[in-house]
Amino acid sequence: MVRLPKGTRDFPPEQNILRERIVSTLKDVFERYGYSPLDTPTFELFDVLSSKYTGGEEILKETFTFKDQGKRELGLRYDLTVPLARFIALNPRMKMPFKRYQVGEVYRDGPVASARYRQFTQCDVDVIGASSLQADVELLLLANAAFSKLDLDFEIKVNSRKLLNEILIYCGVRESKIDTVILTIDKLEKFGSKVVEDELKQKEVNPDSVKKLLTITTLKGTNQEKLEKLKTLLGETEGIKEIEEIFSYLKEDNFVFDVSLARGLAYYTGMVMEVFLKKGKVRSSVCGGGRYDNMIGSLMGKQDIPAVGISFGLDRIYDAFLETEKDTKKTVTDLFIIPISTPKESLDLAQQLRNEGIKVDVDLMGRSPSKNLNYANAFNIPFVIFLGDDEVKKGKVKLKNMKTGKESLCTIKEVVSLIANSS
Amino acid sequence: MVRLPKGTRDFPPEQNILRERIVSTLKDVFERYGYSPLDTPTFELFDVLSSKYTGGEEILKETFTFKDQGKRELGLRYDLTVPLARFIALNPRMKMPFKRYQVGEVYRDGPVASARYRQFTQCDVDVIGASSLQADVELLLLANAAFSKLDLDFEIKVNSRKLLNEILIYCGVRESKIDTVILTIDKLEKFGSKVVEDELKQKEVNPDSVKKLLTITTLKGTNQEKLEKLKTLLGETEGIKEIEEIFSYLKEDNFVFDVSLARGLAYYTGMVMEVFLKKGKVRSSVCGGGRYDNMIGSLMGKQDIPAVGISFGLDRIYDAFLETEKDTKKTVTDLFIIPISTPKESLDLAQQLRNEGIKVDVDLMGRSPSKNLNYANAFNIPFVIFLGDDEVKKGKVKLKNMKTGKESLCTIKEVVSLIANSS
Repeated sequence: MVRLPKGTRDFPPEQNILRERIVSTLKDVFERYGYSPLDTPTFELFDVLSSKYTGGEEILKETFTFKDQGKRELGLRYDLTVPLARFIALNPRMKMPFKRYQVGEVYRDGPVASARYRQFTQCDVDVIGASSLQADVELLLLANAAFSKLDLDFEIKVNSRKLLNEILIYCGVRESKIDTVILTIDKLEKFGSKVVEDELKQKEVNPDSVKKLLTITTLKGTNQEKLEKLKTLLGETEGIKEIEEIFSYLKEDNFVFDVSLARGLAYYTGMVMEVFLKKGKVRSSVCGGGRYDNMIGSLMGKQDIPAVGISFGLDRIYDAFLETEKDTKKTVTDLFIIPISTPKESLDLAQQLRNEGIKVDVDLMGRSPSKNLNYANAFNIPFVIFLGDDEVKKGKVKLKNMKTGKESLCTIKEVVSLIANSS
Repeated sequence: MVRLPKGTRDFPPEQNILRERIVSTLKDVFERYGYSPLDTPTFELFDVLSSKYTGGEEILKETFTFKDQGKRELGLRYDLTVPLARFIALNPRMKMPFKRYQVGEVYRDGPVASARYRQFTQCDVDVIGASSLQADVELLLLANAAFSKLDLDFEIKVNSRKLLNEILIYCGVRESKIDTVILTIDKLEKFGSKVVEDELKQKEVNPDSVKKLLTITTLKGTNQEKLEKLKTLLGETEGIKEIEEIFSYLKEDNFVFDVSLARGLAYYTGMVMEVFLKKGKVRSSVCGGGRYDNMIGSLMGKQDIPAVGISFGLDRIYDAFLETEKDTKKTVTDLFIIPISTPKESLDLAQQLRNEGIKVDVDLMGRSPSKNLNYANAFNIPFVIFLGDDEVKKGKVKLKNMKTGKESLCTIKEVVSLIANSS
C-alpha cells in the first residue's frame, strides 16, 4: 500500500505558499544583517555527526544512519550547526567573521508524539570567528527584527551559560554535576518548580543547594532588578558583566533576562536565547541558540574558534501563522483564462500576460465555461477572463473580479494594472 | 579526519548566491505559468520508490536505503516525479488539473565520475490530470520562457514516444525489443551512428531494421521537412499527428523536432523533450521530461492518470552560468560600516539602514579601520561607511563607493537612495 514514511508529511500548495512566504521574510531579514546563504549536503559522515561537542548521545540515538556503496557510514544531519562547523573545519582559510545563514531540512528518528516530526526545517544564522559580545547582540537584534517583520507577538529570553555556571557553583553544586543539573533547570519553564526540585533530589544534589538554586532561578522583577539582586549575591562576575553588556544594547521591551534559561545542549559556552510567542497555542520556543566556542576548534583539532548562532523553527512558526491566517492561498495563480472556442487565442493572451509578470492559468482540459469557473472558484483564483470570438475581434477581454463579482471589458494594459494593483 | 561524504559538495556563499538567483528566476517563470509549490519528504518508503513504472532497476541500484527505528525500509528519493505520483495517489480527490512545481535535492549512490554528484538539485514542473496536448505545449513554452529569462543560448528538442514506437515497428523491430532498442537510440546524439549500429546488432536487431532505423532517426531538414518525409513513410499515424499538433503551437525557432530523441526512462508514453545549450562546455541536457500517463494510476491501482512534466537540472545550469559570469558575488552585503571609536553609534546606524532594506554589515571584531577596509575588499562589498565622532555630530556619514573609490559626505536618506540606485 502507498503511504508516507512515519513521522513525515507533505506540504501541498495551500500550506507551502505560506511556508515559502515565511522563509522569504526570514531570508530578507538575514540578508539585511549581512548574512549570506550557505548550502551543505543533506547527509554527513557519521564520524562528523558524532564528534565531541556536537549533538550528544540523545541526538545520536535519533540519527538516521546508512552506508554508501563504498561502505562509508553516513547519517542524515540532525541540525545545521554541525555541518557548518564541518564546513569551517574544511575551509580554515575562510575570512573571519564568517556570517552565513542556511535554510534546510533536518532529521530525527525519534518517537512520533504530537507535532513531533522526523523531518523538519531549520533556518539558522551564525557568526563564526567573532568572540565579541557584539556578535551575540547582532543575532538578538536580528531575531527581534525577524519576529517583528513576521508580525507575531513574542518575547526573547536571554541568559548566559557562564552566569548559570557561576550560580550553580555559588549554590554549592559540584563541578561534576553541572551539566546534568543544567538539563534539569532547563525544565523549569515547562514543568514548574516541583518537578525540577524532585529531579534535582534524585540527582543527589544536596537539599540546601536545591533550595538556593530554586530561589535564584525563579527571581522576579525587571531585567535590571534581577541583575541587581544577582550582583548582591555573586558580586561582579564575568557572567553578570556579560549580561549587563548585552542588555546595554537592547532597548526593546521584547528582551527578557531569564536566569532559568539553560538550553539542554551541552555545547553552549556563553549567551543563550530562546524566543516564545505570547499568544496562541504554540508554547515551545520558535527560535533558540547561543554561543558555542568549543565545537569548531574541536572538529579541527585546534584551539577554540568563537561561534554564535540561532535557529528559527519553521514548522512552529508556520503553526503559529496558521492560527491567525484566515485566507491562505491555494494557488499562486492571479488569473484564469476561460476560452470560449478560442484555444489558440487564449494561449496567446496567456503568453502576453505572463510576459507582463502576471501569474496566469488557462484551460488545459477543453472544459465548458461553467466547469472552468468552478475550477477557478475551487482554487480561489482572484480574477477570471472569458475570451470569446467577440472579444478577440474587439481586441479587448472580459475580466471578472471573483471577490466582488464585478465584470468589465478591458484592454490588456488595463488587465495588467488592475491585477498588479489588487495584490 | 573531517571530510565531506564522497560525491557531495558544499555551496559556499560565492556559489550559492548565484544558485539561488537561478532558482528564483525559475520559480518566477513557473508561477507565471500558474504552477504552485509542493514540498514532500526527502525520503520515501522503499516500496514506493520501487513501484512499477517508476525509476527502474538501474536507479534502484543507486538508491540510498536505510531503516527507521520501526524497521521500516526507506530510501532517499532519486527524483521528484515518484514523490509527486505518491502524493497524488494519497490525495485522490485533488482537483484536476493539478499544476505543481518542486525544487529539491535528489540522491543517487552511483559511481562518482566527472561532474556526477550523489546529491543534486532538480526543479520539476508537472501537470497532472490533463491528457490534452495543450498541457505538453504549455510546458514546452514554459521551458522556452525559462531559458530565455536565464539569457542562455539554447534549443529544445522535441519528439514523441508514440511516434518512436511507430517508427520501430515500421522498421521491423519486434514488440518485445522496443524498450531496449529505445535505450540504444537514445545514445545517438552522444555517441554517434557507429556505436548505435554496433549495439543494435549486439541486441540481435536484424541488419535491415538497423539500416532503416538509422536512416530515419538521422533525418535532416527543417521540422516541417522531417515531418513530411516521415509522413510519406508511415502515413498519418497518431504519433505524427501528435508532433504536428504540438508544433502548430510553437512559433519560436528554439524548438527542434528530433526523431532520435528517446530519453532512457521506460515510463514515458507521449511527448518527450530535452533542452541543450548551444554554447559553452555543458554538453548534456539541462532540462528534460515528457508525458508519463501510466505511473500514477499504477501506484493507485487504478486506470491511467494523465501526467506530463519536465525537470530542470540546477547543477548543470549553474555550471553553464559560471562560464559566462565574471563577477560572482561573495556576499549579499551592500554596505560595510567601519566604526572609528563609535561602536554603539555604528550599530544604531546599521539598524536604521537595515530598516530601510539595505543589507548592512558592521564591524564585530573591534578591528582597526584599515583591517576593516581589507575585509570589505576581500568580500567585494560595494560600499563602505566610516563613522567617526565628527560625522556623528554632523548627523552625516562618509560613504565610499568601493568600485569608483569616490567618497562623499551624505545624509542617511542619501545613502539609501545611492545604494538602491546602484544595484
